[in-house]
Amino acid sequence: MKALVYNGPGKKSWETKPRPAILDATDAIVKVYKTTICGTDLHILKGDVPEVTPGRILGHEGVGVIEEIGSAVNNFKKGDHVLISCISSCGKCDYCKKGMYSHCEKGGWILGHLIDGTQAEYVRTPFADNSLYKIPQGADEEALVMLSDILPTGFECGVLNGRISPGDTVAIVGAGPVGLAALLTAQFYTPSEIIMIDVDDNRLEVAKKFGASRTINSSKENVVDKVKSLTGNKGVDCAIEAVGIPATFELCESIVTAGGHIANIGVHGKSVELHLETLWAQNITITTRLVDTVTTPMLLKTVTSKKLDPQQLITHRFPLSDIIKAYDVFSNPGKERALKVIMTNE
Amino acid sequence: MKALVYNGPGKKSWETKPRPAILDATDAIVKVYKTTICGTDLHILKGDVPEVTPGRILGHEGVGVIEEIGSAVNNFKKGDHVLISCISSCGKCDYCKKGMYSHCEKGGWILGHLIDGTQAEYVRTPFADNSLYKIPQGADEEALVMLSDILPTGFECGVLNGRISPGDTVAIVGAGPVGLAALLTAQFYTPSEIIMIDVDDNRLEVAKKFGASRTINSSKENVVDKVKSLTGNKGVDCAIEAVGIPATFELCESIVTAGGHIANIGVHGKSVELHLETLWAQNITITTRLVDTVTTPMLLKTVTSKKLDPQQLITHRFPLSDIIKAYDVFSNPGKERALKVIMTNE
Amino acid sequence: MKALVYNGPGKKSWETKPRPAILDATDAIVKVYKTTICGTDLHILKGDVPEVTPGRILGHEGVGVIEEIGSAVNNFKKGDHVLISCISSCGKCDYCKKGMYSHCEKGGWILGHLIDGTQAEYVRTPFADNSLYKIPQGADEEALVMLSDILPTGFECGVLNGRISPGDTVAIVGAGPVGLAALLTAQFYTPSEIIMIDVDDNRLEVAKKFGASRTINSSKENVVDKVKSLTGNKGVDCAIEAVGIPATFELCESIVTAGGHIANIGVHGKSVELHLETLWAQNITITTRLVDTVTTPMLLKTVTSKKLDPQQLITHRFPLSDIIKAYDVFSNPGKERALKVIMTNE
Amino acid sequence: MKALVYNGPGKKSWETKPRPAILDATDAIVKVYKTTICGTDLHILKGDVPEVTPGRILGHEGVGVIEEIGSAVNNFKKGDHVLISCISSCGKCDYCKKGMYSHCEKGGWILGHLIDGTQAEYVRTPFADNSLYKIPQGADEEALVMLSDILPTGFECGVLNGRISPGDTVAIVGAGPVGLAALLTAQFYTPSEIIMIDVDDNRLEVAKKFGASRTINSSKENVVDKVKSLTGNKGVDCAIEAVGIPATFELCESIVTAGGHIANIGVHGKSVELHLETLWAQNITITTRLVDTVTTPMLLKTVTSKKLDPQQLITHRFPLSDIIKAYDVFSNPGKERALKVIMTNE
Repeated sequence: MKALVYNGPGKKSWETKPRPAILDATDAIVKVYKTTICGTDLHILKGDVPEVTPGRILGHEGVGVIEEIGSAVNNFKKGDHVLISCISSCGKCDYCKKGMYSHCEKGGWILGHLIDGTQAEYVRTPFADNSLYKIPQGADEEALVMLSDILPTGFECGVLNGRISPGDTVAIVGAGPVGLAALLTAQFYTPSEIIMIDVDDNRLEVAKKFGASRTINSSKENVVDKVKSLTGNKGVDCAIEAVGIPATFELCESIVTAGGHIANIGVHGKSVELHLETLWAQNITITTRLVDTVTTPMLLKTVTSKKLDPQQLITHRFPLSDIIKAYDVFSNPGKERALKVIMTNE
Repeated sequence: MKALVYNGPGKKSWETKPRPAILDATDAIVKVYKTTICGTDLHILKGDVPEVTPGRILGHEGVGVIEEIGSAVNNFKKGDHVLISCISSCGKCDYCKKGMYSHCEKGGWILGHLIDGTQAEYVRTPFADNSLYKIPQGADEEALVMLSDILPTGFECGVLNGRISPGDTVAIVGAGPVGLAALLTAQFYTPSEIIMIDVDDNRLEVAKKFGASRTINSSKENVVDKVKSLTGNKGVDCAIEAVGIPATFELCESIVTAGGHIANIGVHGKSVELHLETLWAQNITITTRLVDTVTTPMLLKTVTSKKLDPQQLITHRFPLSDIIKAYDVFSNPGKERALKVIMTNE
Repeated sequence: MKALVYNGPGKKSWETKPRPAILDATDAIVKVYKTTICGTDLHILKGDVPEVTPGRILGHEGVGVIEEIGSAVNNFKKGDHVLISCISSCGKCDYCKKGMYSHCEKGGWILGHLIDGTQAEYVRTPFADNSLYKIPQGADEEALVMLSDILPTGFECGVLNGRISPGDTVAIVGAGPVGLAALLTAQFYTPSEIIMIDVDDNRLEVAKKFGASRTINSSKENVVDKVKSLTGNKGVDCAIEAVGIPATFELCESIVTAGGHIANIGVHGKSVELHLETLWAQNITITTRLVDTVTTPMLLKTVTSKKLDPQQLITHRFPLSDIIKAYDVFSNPGKERALKVIMTNE
Repeated sequence: MKALVYNGPGKKSWETKPRPAILDATDAIVKVYKTTICGTDLHILKGDVPEVTPGRILGHEGVGVIEEIGSAVNNFKKGDHVLISCISSCGKCDYCKKGMYSHCEKGGWILGHLIDGTQAEYVRTPFADNSLYKIPQGADEEALVMLSDILPTGFECGVLNGRISPGDTVAIVGAGPVGLAALLTAQFYTPSEIIMIDVDDNRLEVAKKFGASRTINSSKENVVDKVKSLTGNKGVDCAIEAVGIPATFELCESIVTAGGHIANIGVHGKSVELHLETLWAQNITITTRLVDTVTTPMLLKTVTSKKLDPQQLITHRFPLSDIIKAYDVFSNPGKERALKVIMTNE
C-alpha cells in the first residue's frame, strides 16, 4: 500500500509500505477513507518530536471502513464505517477506567507517533473497541474527520476545562484549527461574548463567521486594554490558550478576571512565567490537558443532531495520493487560507 | 484604648488610640477578647504591604464580645460572643453573592490593612451580619481564633481547591501554621497519605502529631525522589504550596501526578516558572485563592462536633498588653517552636 | 393608589389602597412600570394558598422605578430602573449565604403572598439590595418581567437541576409558560433533542417555534411508546415536570433513562407514587426546588447579549387598570392562546 | 467441585457440579478462597428474583486465586490473588465507558444471578480485566471480601450519592450490613453527626462502635421528633435509606432538611408515596443506584492505608463446606447477632 512516511527531520515521502496486519487480538485493520494533517505532524517533520523515528507512517486522524478485526474485538465487524480517535484507549488500565485515556498505559497518543498512523491506505488501530466509534448511518463522514482530534481537543482542553457557563465572557487566543474548534464548541454553553484573538485577519474573519462576537488582531491592537474595555474593566471569565508559546499564555494571565479560568490547549516547548505575585490572590484556575477523546460520543450526538457543523473547518480537499501537495498547502495557512485539508483515499 | 500600631517599616508600638465608634449602620464594635498574629503582620512590618499606612492598628483575627451595633445589624446584639473573620463581606455585591467574599467590592481583607484591626482592646468590624459568626454556647473561644484566618485559608485554598478525595496522596510543602491548618483539614477527606515537607525538623515533628503519614526535610533529602518512591513513581494527587516562594511552587510542579492538582496557598512576591513544556500534557489543575472564609460555618460545625481541634495550633499565650513580646516569639518560630500565639485582653 | 386585591376565595377587585411606605431600612418603594400574572395567582384566587389572607395585594413579578429607599439600601437610588425578583433575599441568613434564597429566613416568596405584591401602582420590596436587579441601559424592560419568576424557575428547577448537557435528550412535560421557560433555557446547554409534551396543540405549536425538536400531544399519542421510539428505546436523559399533578410526574418516571434526571418544577397538591420497585436500580436523580432566583444575574447577561429572547413569552398586553380583563384572558389560555400577559402602569 | 445450588424457591443444596471452564477470551477461572452471603441471596431463595433459575450456583462476593485466564485477559495471570466484584464490567459499552458498570450491556450484576456465582470452589468471572482487582501484597484477604459488594454499595449509593460533606448531619435508616457499610464510609467525609436508626438494639450497639454519634430505636422512639430535636428542628442534610420498604423511605422524606439529600440503597419491592405536596418546595435531591463498583480502587486504597477496617463487619466464620449452616446463621441475624459471615474454601 501507499503511505506518507517520515524519513527524519525535514524529510517525508509518499512511498510503498507493507499493508498492516493484526498483531493483537484487540486490533482492527481499517481501510482509510479520509484523513487529514495536524499541526503536530508539522512539528514531527521539523524534528521536534524525537520519539518519532524514521520510517514511521504519520497521521492520527481519519475515518474508514473496517477491513479485519482481531479475535477479541466485539463492537465492530468487517464493513463497519468508523471514526478513528487520535487517542488509543485500552479500556482496562487505571487511567482508562477514570476517563483519562490520554495517559492510557498501553495507548494514549501512539498513532502516527509510536506506531504507524492514518496517512496511508490502511492502518492498524489498537484497542479497537475502545478507540473507534461507529459512524451513524447517513452521517457526513468527511465532517467527522474533525472529531478524530481537533474538536475533542478544543472542547475538552479548552471549553470543558475552562468551565464555560451561560453568560460568561470568553477569550480564545489563537484562531488556528484548534482555537476555532474551541470557538465552535464553546457555543454549546451559550457564553455572552467570545473574543477571538490572533495576528491573522483572515482567520479572524473566519472566527466571526464561526460565531465569535468580537475579534482582536494582536499585532495591531493592545489586547489587554481592548479586553478590559469590552469586559467592564474586569477581564474574561475564561481565557483559552490555543497557540503554545509563552507570550500567548502570559496574555491569558493578563486578561483573566478574578475567579476565572485559564484553559491551556497549546503544545508548549518552553516554560512560561506565571505571575503568582498578582495571581496568588485572584482565585484563578489554570488547567492543562492532553485530549482524552472521552467526549467523542457526546460530540457525535451534537453533530448528528445538527448542533455542530464540523464541515466548516475544512478548506481544501485532495486525493490521498496528492498528500505532499496537501502538506504544502497546510504548511502555508496564511497564504493558502487553509484550516483543515482533507485527503480522500479513492 | 490600647492598640498595636504600625508606624512605618520596622516600627510598631503598643500605644493609646481612640476607641472606635460606629461609622456605618452595618458596623459593630467588638470588645476583643483574644487575638493572634499572622505571618502577614510580619510582612506588613517589613514594609512589604505598601497599602498599610503608618498609624494603622494591625490584626485581622480574633474573638470578642459585641459592644455596640449599627442600626442595620440584625444578626447580633450587645453581649453576643463572636468570631471575627479576617475577610469582611458586604453580602450585597456580585462577588459576595457568589461566595467570593475575598473580592467583596467594599470589603475583602481590609481589617488591619485598610482599616484598623483586631490587635487592640476594641475593633470596629464593618458588615457585621456577614462578617461575624456567633460563637456556640460552651465553645472553646481561644481555639476559635484559629477560624478567623488560618483554618479557612488552609481548607479553602489548599484542601478544597486541591479536591482531596478518600484514598488520595497529598503533599503539603511548608509546615508553618497555614500548612498545618491544611494538614488538619485535609483529613476531613481521608486521603491515604499526607506527606509534609519542610526544612524544620521541629515543625515536621509537629506535623506527625497532627496526622501527617510521612515527613520529608527538604534540606536533607531529595524531595522529588522521595515523593516518587512513596507514590509508586507517580507523584501525588494533590500538592499544596504553603510557603510562597518560587522554589516551593516549582517543587509542587515536580511532584504532582498526571491528572493531579496544585493548590497554591502561599503569598508570592515574585513570578514562578511554570514548566508547560512538560505540564501541558499532564492534565493538571493549578489554583490560587485569597481565602473567602465562606466555609467558616462548616468549620464551626466540625469544631463543635469535635472533628477538628484547632487548639493544637496554639503554642504560646500572652496578655494583650505583652503583644510586643508576643511578636518577638512569633518572629522566631524556629527558636521558640512557635506556631500560633494567643493574646488575651483580660 | 390602585391595586388588585384578593378578597377571599373567588373574589378579587381593582381598588384603592394606601401607597406603601418604607417600613425597614432595607426596603425600597418601587413605582411599578410593568407587571404580569402567574399561575400561582390563580391558585391563590381559588383559595388553594391559605396563608394569603383577604385584603392582600397580589403579584410577585414586575419591573419599575425606584421611588424611595430605606437608609440601609446601598445598591440603588431614586430613579433607578429595576427588576423585581419574586423571591426576597435578606442576604444575611444561612440560606441566603449558600444561595438558597427560596428558604431565606425572613424572605423567600413573600411578595403577593405574605406581604403586598406588585399588581399595584407601587410596591414595597424588602431587602432591596439583594432582591432587586438594576436594569441595564437600553434593555427591553417588558421582556425582563419574564425574569422575575418564570425564567429563573424554568432554568433553576428544570434545566440546572436536570443537569442538561450537550447532546442530551430532554423531555419537558407541560408547555405552559414555565415549561416554555425551561424549553428556552434548556437550549443554553445544546441538548440533541427536546421533546415537548402537552395536551394543547396550540402550545405545542408554540413550543416548536421556541426550539422544541419534537412535540407529543399526550391526549392523542402514547407518550411512553413515542419517547422510547425517539430515544433508541432508552428514554430521555432528563425529564422535566412542569405541570404539578401525579400523572405527569409518574410519566416522567416512565420515560427517564437509566442514569437520568427527573427535575420537578410543578407545584404539587398531592403525593405521587414513586416506583422504587423498578427505579431503585436505575441510578436516577430526582430533584425538587422552589426557585431561588440565584441565577438572575446570569440570565440578565444572556438577555443583554441576545442569547435569550424572553419577549416571545408575552402574548397579551393591557393597561394596568384593565387587570381584571387581563386575569380573564390569562385564566383561559386555551381559548385565548395566552402565555404571559403584561399590564403596564401608564 | 462442590457448590451451593438454588433449586427453586425455598430449596438450596451443597452439591457436586462440573468445574467451570473458560467460555470467552475475556474470562478468568478463579479458585474461590473466601466468599460470603448477601441479603440478596436470601431474596433469591424466597423466589423473589425470578430471573434466577433452578440449578444456578449462588453468590456474587469473594476473593480467590486466578486458576486460568482467557486469551484476551492482560491484567492478570495464574496465581494472582484477586478480589471479585459483584458487578461484571465489559469495559467497552457506553455504560462502562461512563463508569455506570451496573448497567453494562453484557455484564452488570450477573454473578450468582444470570450465571453461576462464587459460593463454590471455582467460579468463572467474565470480563476479568475490568471486573477483578489485584489484592495488594500483605492485605487481609478476608476483610477484602467486604469490598465485593457491601462497601461499594454503602459508599456509592449512600455516601457519594448523598453528597456527605464535612460538618453535615446524616441519618442512616437500617443498621444491617449495608447500612453499616454506609456508616463506615460516611466517615470518610467527616460529618458532624451520624444518626443510626433501626429496630434492633444489638445492631444499634454495633453502630455506636462503628462510629455512629447517635442511635434511635424506631420501635421505641418517635424518630421524626428525635431527629428534629437533634438537628435544631431542621432535619438532616442527608438521609440514607438502607432497608427497602415504603415505611423507611417515607421516614427519610420526613427527616430530610430543606436542601438535603435522600440517598436510596434499599432494594424495593413496592412503590412508595412521594410527598411532593410538601417536598416540591424543599429543594431536595433523591437518588437511586445499583452499585457500579467504580469506587473499588478508591476503597482498596483506604483499606491499604488503614483508613477503613472492613474486618469489623465479619461476625461468623465457617468452612465453605458448612455453607448450609452459614445460611442458617445469616438468616437469623437478630438471634445470632450476625452481620457478615465468611466461608473459607480450605
